[in-house]
Amino acid sequence: MNGSSTPPIRVAILGSTGSIGVSALSVIERHPQRFQVVALAANRSVERLEVQAARHDPLRVVVADQEAYRSCRDNGTHWRGGRSALLELAELEEADVVVNALVGFAGLEPSLRALEAGKRLALANKESLVTGGDLLLQALEKGDGELVPIDSEHSAILQCLEGCSRKEVQRLVLTASGGPFRGWSPERLAGVGAEDALRHPTWEMGAKISIDSATLANKALEVIEAHLLYQVSYDRIDAVVHPQSIIHSFVEFVDGSVMAQLGFPTMELPILYALTYPQRLDDVVLRTFDPVGSSPLTFEEVDGDAFPLFGIGVAAGRTGGTAPTVFNAANEIAVAAFLDGTLTFPGMARVVEGTLDRVDPEPVSEIQGVLEADRKGRRIATDLTTRRSIAAGTDG
Amino acid sequence: MNGSSTPPIRVAILGSTGSIGVSALSVIERHPQRFQVVALAANRSVERLEVQAARHDPLRVVVADQEAYRSCRDNGTHWRGGRSALLELAELEEADVVVNALVGFAGLEPSLRALEAGKRLALANKESLVTGGDLLLQALEKGDGELVPIDSEHSAILQCLEGCSRKEVQRLVLTASGGPFRGWSPERLAGVGAEDALRHPTWEMGAKISIDSATLANKALEVIEAHLLYQVSYDRIDAVVHPQSIIHSFVEFVDGSVMAQLGFPTMELPILYALTYPQRLDDVVLRTFDPVGSSPLTFEEVDGDAFPLFGIGVAAGRTGGTAPTVFNAANEIAVAAFLDGTLTFPGMARVVEGTLDRVDPEPVSEIQGVLEADRKGRRIATDLTTRRSIAAGTDG
Repeated sequence: MNGSSTPPIRVAILGSTGSIGVSALSVIERHPQRFQVVALAANRSVERLEVQAARHDPLRVVVADQEAYRSCRDNGTHWRGGRSALLELAELEEADVVVNALVGFAGLEPSLRALEAGKRLALANKESLVTGGDLLLQALEKGDGELVPIDSEHSAILQCLEGCSRKEVQRLVLTASGGPFRGWSPERLAGVGAEDALRHPTWEMGAKISIDSATLANKALEVIEAHLLYQVSYDRIDAVVHPQSIIHSFVEFVDGSVMAQLGFPTMELPILYALTYPQRLDDVVLRTFDPVGSSPLTFEEVDGDAFPLFGIGVAAGRTGGTAPTVFNAANEIAVAAFLDGTLTFPGMARVVEGTLDRVDPEPVSEIQGVLEADRKGRRIATDLTTRRSIAAGTDG
Repeated sequence: MNGSSTPPIRVAILGSTGSIGVSALSVIERHPQRFQVVALAANRSVERLEVQAARHDPLRVVVADQEAYRSCRDNGTHWRGGRSALLELAELEEADVVVNALVGFAGLEPSLRALEAGKRLALANKESLVTGGDLLLQALEKGDGELVPIDSEHSAILQCLEGCSRKEVQRLVLTASGGPFRGWSPERLAGVGAEDALRHPTWEMGAKISIDSATLANKALEVIEAHLLYQVSYDRIDAVVHPQSIIHSFVEFVDGSVMAQLGFPTMELPILYALTYPQRLDDVVLRTFDPVGSSPLTFEEVDGDAFPLFGIGVAAGRTGGTAPTVFNAANEIAVAAFLDGTLTFPGMARVVEGTLDRVDPEPVSEIQGVLEADRKGRRIATDLTTRRSIAAGTDG
């Protein structure tokens, strides 16, 4: 890509003060001719948002949390507050690409709005696809929107599939770092606390996703996403533990050939690729490939006994309908309780499994059904986290 | 690819009784609806050729060596003998693809003929590109011919480049098994014999290529091939030792992303891909990907002191013109002398370097110049192998 003649890609970043948002701004800053920040949004981090806004001079800035918005100093009329202002950003006329780096279920509606408005949705918010996958696929079919994943595994798969026919795909193999507790026994895991789980070995990430990485719930969400994004059946999606996080995923083809995408573990690379896909932009900072320095690359099976949330999540994906939404909702509640210290590490899986047992899955045809399943999942999971029997593991 | 409606791909195999030829026939036999063997040729292995011909019923069979041909029983008029019959096979009207699995410099002319006749040239013969690269590129530009590499490294690169713009390529990194003497000191290498060098750790191959793999001359030839095939400057082609031979090569792109092609080390996969490129054919036998079973994958720097033929070969590539031809010719003589026991392992590099020192490189515009440089290189190298000073390493 040559930046001299093409107009800049106009980018709106939802969740700009989080880990992905900050990385996106860092990439964008290195290529001022290629990208223009037209909108920034955060949930509550007003001070950081003010710094970002001063630096990038966007057309619109949104603080999604009304209370936090009211605490702002007067930044001018291009600053707005509240959920509806956030949803408007997702369809902002001046934006070509909407980076959705919001955390949790709150990201679904903005994703839908962006696709319906014909934007390229650069999607880091896993829950959009996991809970509203069918709706997003409908929106993609109907309109001019485009979905490009930002996380490293799905970006890797997208790159492996470039120039290939989807019919030639035999199997997707997602790599997982294994998190901070790789190789630990279920007994040892019973005693871990939030501080331990937040220490991720290879990726620097927010708290929620760090815990999901430690439980492998994250990898289950990614399997569901891969199923939806690439229309590959669950029987042909595997995960393998790869502690170095250098190979970001594999695609096996029908002739036995396997393609992999590799790189130093930085989210800046999949972010840049999502912005420029299918082209690539010259970025000296990201060129750090060193096979000798990366050696050895190792692989292990996923330990389903120690990390039951992986299997529970994939099973919810197979069930389909609202089951992944319930899985996700219960998992969010369980993670929050674990971070608060009110739930043990193994208790998280018990809460999520217990919730899925108590909510019948239903087909998804509109967002209302997803919202209800989400609320129901949260209510039941919240109830379950307070039960001593769940925390202690004596509940059926 | 669906075999039911498309006519079979008609394949001529030059060098059918060698390692690559046998693998090609093995792949073809598994897909009788997709491929038809229209011609077979070998140099001298008449008995094996008779068995192959009985099995595949080709339109034409050639024994390139006249003496060996005369020793044949009467197989009918579709059997021919001699070099000119071999060259005719390369342009056989009934062939869509010509697999060139001939050994050594003798492969160049058939490659040229196949391209000039508008065939797809599935090229396993390294020397075609190394010695006649400029001529092959001219033939490609002029006609309807097509060149698809068969060796695992260049096939890997081709697969990594699918769907990408060549402008986005930052660097090619070829993997090398390191051969049977990986990690050995120059002193220890002084005492190795042909039997040691023929024991390759990961690939089963013929004698010449096994020795080239042990000296890394093979990898130098591949760097030169990669330069010609993909028009990437030598500064942006590296080699790295990867003892497991699972990752067959890497391509680094300008955005820092790295693609790799992997697979169990079997030549059947690059052969199949060269026949069906850019499509892929379903082949259950070749689907053996097992990351956990392949773990760990390791990488080491190439040891230029222990394996000087690598650097000598790449330098000849950079010089260009007839230099790679002289390198190749001298190397063939040196390998033969090593296999005969008349030259030491380190003596091979000295013979090749000494030959390159004594022949001035010239530009290549027609095959005659290549043939002359080849003859001159062989003559001087043959002379040098008989000098005690070269074998002993006391020659400047």
